[in-house]
Amino acid sequence: MFNTEKQDGVVENPDTETQGYVFNHTMLRVKDPKRSLAFYTGVLGMRLLRRLDFAEMKFSLYFLVKTADENIPEDTKERQIYAFSREGVLEFTHNWGTENDDTQYHSGNSEPKGFGHLCFSVPDIRKACARFEKLGVEFQKKLDSGSMKDIAFIKDPDGYWIEIVQADLNGDMGR
Amino acid sequence: MFNTEKQDGVVENPDTETQGYVFNHTMLRVKDPKRSLAFYTGVLGMRLLRRLDFAEMKFSLYFLVKTADENIPEDTKERQIYAFSREGVLEFTHNWGTENDDTQYHSGNSEPKGFGHLCFSVPDIRKACARFEKLGVEFQKKLDSGSMKDIAFIKDPDGYWIEIVQADLNGDMGR
Repeated sequence: MFNTEKQDGVVENPDTETQGYVFNHTMLRVKDPKRSLAFYTGVLGMRLLRRLDFAEMKFSLYFLVKTADENIPEDTKERQIYAFSREGVLEFTHNWGTENDDTQYHSGNSEPKGFGHLCFSVPDIRKACARFEKLGVEFQKKLDSGSMKDIAFIKDPDGYWIEIVQADLNGDMGR
Repeated sequence: MFNTEKQDGVVENPDTETQGYVFNHTMLRVKDPKRSLAFYTGVLGMRLLRRLDFAEMKFSLYFLVKTADENIPEDTKERQIYAFSREGVLEFTHNWGTENDDTQYHSGNSEPKGFGHLCFSVPDIRKACARFEKLGVEFQKKLDSGSMKDIAFIKDPDGYWIEIVQADLNGDMGR
């Protein structure tokens, strides 16, 4: 079985204590959950697993996954535990009221830089990008611009970048 | 089968065109890949799937996953395609030279805010946090501080926050 690429810094045999660790989610702040949910469910096909409200601290969390056919628990508590167990979860934090004030979140791609993007892999990138155009999605980079012709970047409603790739076109990328 | 929580904005029946879409990765810029790889493989038990170099543009990409036992392709090209197909991938971008200059990336948790954190789910959060302390990991929030006693936040070498949760403790979180 393939374990890990060798590289300066890489621990080749991870501590057995880490065996049950799961990379569960990525959290982004969103200004307006209604428009973010419309985008991630409507344009990208994600499902909303769970919304949690924290009234004293005036914020809500939303947990989304992209999945076609797995068994997601119907029971609310079980589904909430599932949302904290699974890989590939996207979490939104909505601080109440930001949808009505001048809050603008930072994409991480201008100074000060940090976070770069999310990425969705699609079966047919030309078809997907044509669909995004038809839906009026804003592009950061279209397929035919720049030097990398097989990737695109779209923007979510807060301006966060989302890379779009087609896996089987990228086997020869880089060196 | 559970589909989606109902909520303003949520599209309940996603477009069939999105069926094959996968939430593939989250990208963070890192100052020094050696120290980031040491942290994510050594402390969190991730594996390095693939490093890609782009010499003309002077950057490298690193693709990591947290996995215990799945079949990862040995063949380099197949493994690269796999890295663009799978859920739950973490991508680092290293712009060559940042490890030797004064670059400091922005965590997203001070102004201007945006990205918040990654999250790892662990089987036993008290055991995991004791291990992190022993390894000298920096904490943003320890288990016994603040109002939420069942979650912790650690920091990666660039200062990005990583939430630590134990799924079965969080079934009653929020309302």
